[in-house]
Amino acid sequence: MLEQLKKAVLEANLELPKYKMVTFTWGNVSGIDRESGLVVIKPSGVEYDEMKLEDMVVVDLEGNRVEGELKPSSDTPTHLALYKAFPTIGGIVHTHSPWATSWAQAGRSIPALGTTHADYFYGEIPCTRKMTDEEIQGEYELETGNVIIEHFQNVNPLFMPGVLVNGHAPFAWGKDSHNAVHNAVVLEEVAKMASETYKLNPNVEPISQSLLDKHFLRKHGANAYYGQGK
Amino acid sequence: MLEQLKKAVLEANLELPKYKMVTFTWGNVSGIDRESGLVVIKPSGVEYDEMKLEDMVVVDLEGNRVEGELKPSSDTPTHLALYKAFPTIGGIVHTHSPWATSWAQAGRSIPALGTTHADYFYGEIPCTRKMTDEEIQGEYELETGNVIIEHFQNVNPLFMPGVLVNGHAPFAWGKDSHNAVHNAVVLEEVAKMASETYKLNPNVEPISQSLLDKHFLRKHGANAYYGQGK
Amino acid sequence: MLEQLKKAVLEANLELPKYKMVTFTWGNVSGIDRESGLVVIKPSGVEYDEMKLEDMVVVDLEGNRVEGELKPSSDTPTHLALYKAFPTIGGIVHTHSPWATSWAQAGRSIPALGTTHADYFYGEIPCTRKMTDEEIQGEYELETGNVIIEHFQNVNPLFMPGVLVNGHAPFAWGKDSHNAVHNAVVLEEVAKMASETYKLNPNVEPISQSLLDKHFLRKHGANAYYGQGK
Amino acid sequence: MLEQLKKAVLEANLELPKYKMVTFTWGNVSGIDRESGLVVIKPSGVEYDEMKLEDMVVVDLEGNRVEGELKPSSDTPTHLALYKAFPTIGGIVHTHSPWATSWAQAGRSIPALGTTHADYFYGEIPCTRKMTDEEIQGEYELETGNVIIEHFQNVNPLFMPGVLVNGHAPFAWGKDSHNAVHNAVVLEEVAKMASETYKLNPNVEPISQSLLDKHFLRKHGANAYYGQGK
Repeated sequence: MLEQLKKAVLEANLELPKYKMVTFTWGNVSGIDRESGLVVIKPSGVEYDEMKLEDMVVVDLEGNRVEGELKPSSDTPTHLALYKAFPTIGGIVHTHSPWATSWAQAGRSIPALGTTHADYFYGEIPCTRKMTDEEIQGEYELETGNVIIEHFQNVNPLFMPGVLVNGHAPFAWGKDSHNAVHNAVVLEEVAKMASETYKLNPNVEPISQSLLDKHFLRKHGANAYYGQGK
Repeated sequence: MLEQLKKAVLEANLELPKYKMVTFTWGNVSGIDRESGLVVIKPSGVEYDEMKLEDMVVVDLEGNRVEGELKPSSDTPTHLALYKAFPTIGGIVHTHSPWATSWAQAGRSIPALGTTHADYFYGEIPCTRKMTDEEIQGEYELETGNVIIEHFQNVNPLFMPGVLVNGHAPFAWGKDSHNAVHNAVVLEEVAKMASETYKLNPNVEPISQSLLDKHFLRKHGANAYYGQGK
Repeated sequence: MLEQLKKAVLEANLELPKYKMVTFTWGNVSGIDRESGLVVIKPSGVEYDEMKLEDMVVVDLEGNRVEGELKPSSDTPTHLALYKAFPTIGGIVHTHSPWATSWAQAGRSIPALGTTHADYFYGEIPCTRKMTDEEIQGEYELETGNVIIEHFQNVNPLFMPGVLVNGHAPFAWGKDSHNAVHNAVVLEEVAKMASETYKLNPNVEPISQSLLDKHFLRKHGANAYYGQGK
Repeated sequence: MLEQLKKAVLEANLELPKYKMVTFTWGNVSGIDRESGLVVIKPSGVEYDEMKLEDMVVVDLEGNRVEGELKPSSDTPTHLALYKAFPTIGGIVHTHSPWATSWAQAGRSIPALGTTHADYFYGEIPCTRKMTDEEIQGEYELETGNVIIEHFQNVNPLFMPGVLVNGHAPFAWGKDSHNAVHNAVVLEEVAKMASETYKLNPNVEPISQSLLDKHFLRKHGANAYYGQGK
């Protein structure tokens, strides 16, 4: 069942250590099959270098395990909330990559300071509000998803494929699990450069709307002209 | 004698260069067999890539060498003091990993600024007071252990598995030598992210008690639900 | 056609991941054959580890593709503008290497703070002015070249083989594509050290003119005495 | 002639890229045979991965080449000045390693902020005064040696085996070429941690004299007890 998706999600998970995005078993990637509404996700607390195809867990959008021996990632309810709220996305990744996590811990959104950012994120990458004690003590992982979604009212999630969860770490997504990891790597690189930019110029302003438009729209949307096209 | 512990301690020592925690021969890991009260520890000043099983040194809790040709790590008295004071721990590691050492040199404890920290350390990671001239000129390595222990009155050492020795560097521990190294790697990662967080937001506050509780207690203690359980 | 140049440009492109100058498909290198006026450049959006000789694109100085199946880098008009304006250069590289990009995002030129800088760049590495909305919304990549050229009136481009494009990232060049990459790597290293130097001493002054002269001119120009000579 | 020294110096040079201390051909290591007064040094501008035993250059203390086809490092006069002034040292290394170079560019000496420093450097690592225009325009490389020596009046060079040349980069030395590289690597690590320490605590004070004594003297001098002894 969903062999191809499971293979894709396994490979996307293995890209995390390859791109040095994770320490130990931290991080997790999932992918969704929109037709069946089933989600494939990394098991909880398994080492990347021992992870096999049959370890991938299949759950439905209500979180019921429909295949797999292992427990799914403890962050599964966050993934499911995002899949429900963002119908155009096909993959989600969560990491504690250090630069993006530092912004999340600082409680700061990342303004678009340059074209690297503008090539992938169409504006400021939001940092969520702090969660309340009730949310934390309640269905915490689900509420983590909800607080993210609050910040994406009227936002195309494929035009802003990532977020910083306040005091926690980033989530990123994309059209599939591989693309989600790609965006997570870019988010980490953008966070690093934004940190160093502020150290050089604490008063730096975001780039102009026209430069943001130019770079984002030459790679995304109907008028894109970057890459080899289709 | 203690072949399995010696093998585990050797492997834990070799994890230090693997995780880029040490330069040259710096750092040392030990493990204890609580039944016999014997401690296996790295020899002093031996290169990691030449270290063999028979180089491991066995000492009793009073520091008498009971097996091994080589001198034990010069930090052995610190390890022994900690094993005596913390009866639930099974392994100890000392490194000069750069980010944690920078906090130790700065004389600052590391507040819990995010969930990465909260997943492993249940509150602020303490930095010890400065040692007196008398302590330094006396039994220095033993006194290093004593000054650490001072900061752990009424603290479960497995809920706070690391410390920064003021002007020196970190020690970490865990249920065994492998787990101690794991915690040392996390401490280094947490120290790095806390440094970068303060640069982005010098007025950042620690995360809420409820977020600290949620993350620590979903991985540790009776109600843990992270990982595959037993 | 131009087999040797194509081989050199391919190799120079592959040096970018080797020196950790790029993430994913970011960055591009070109080289020019001055006799024919033809430029070989990396194709747009192709993975470095899949790039082959036949993927290299040949364009003339007006941007007409004269050989190759793939679309050339979207930055091609910038490269062409620089080749026209700087007749002594033979290769150009564009990257988003993080330290140089941070300076570009900060909108700051890099003063000559030490001899590493002086060994390759004869003075302050300029950061361009911000581009206007008209330039950005017009022929953007060409205008990027033009704004660079503005800063190089009466400057020998081989004595200042790099620039920071404001809000964007660096370009570097040299006598050929390999030398351009060499200078881009040095620019990144110089940017990193300048960043850390300012953190240690916000009031640091550039090195003296005599030290700048000494280092640059012992490696470049008629009286050079560094290396094995010819 | 001096085959063993040439082999040792070649190996010490090759340790520089191994420990990520150099970019391209930057850096150089030499060693001296005190009996004959001959110095073996790296050739100028040769790639590390192509360097062979026969490329090593032998010069006398006046700088006359007595063996080797290639020109010696352009920094040779600095090395020779140090060998003459410091009769107990046997090897010298010069690098532009980024953290130490940042301190040199900032014009700041590195105080002893922790025991890592104290294990190798018995006090503050000096940054030289700025060189005058006359010194720079005269016998520059020789004068670089002279300005270093100025800072080592009444200092045992084996108790302070490194220096920062203002606006330039570090030199380090030791009892032989291998030990010199070892000290250069430690200097880089100490410089990195001192930088990060100041960012965490701009008012940090050096460690106490007793802690400095304890750590330096347990590894160096007559009462050392670190390592396996002899």
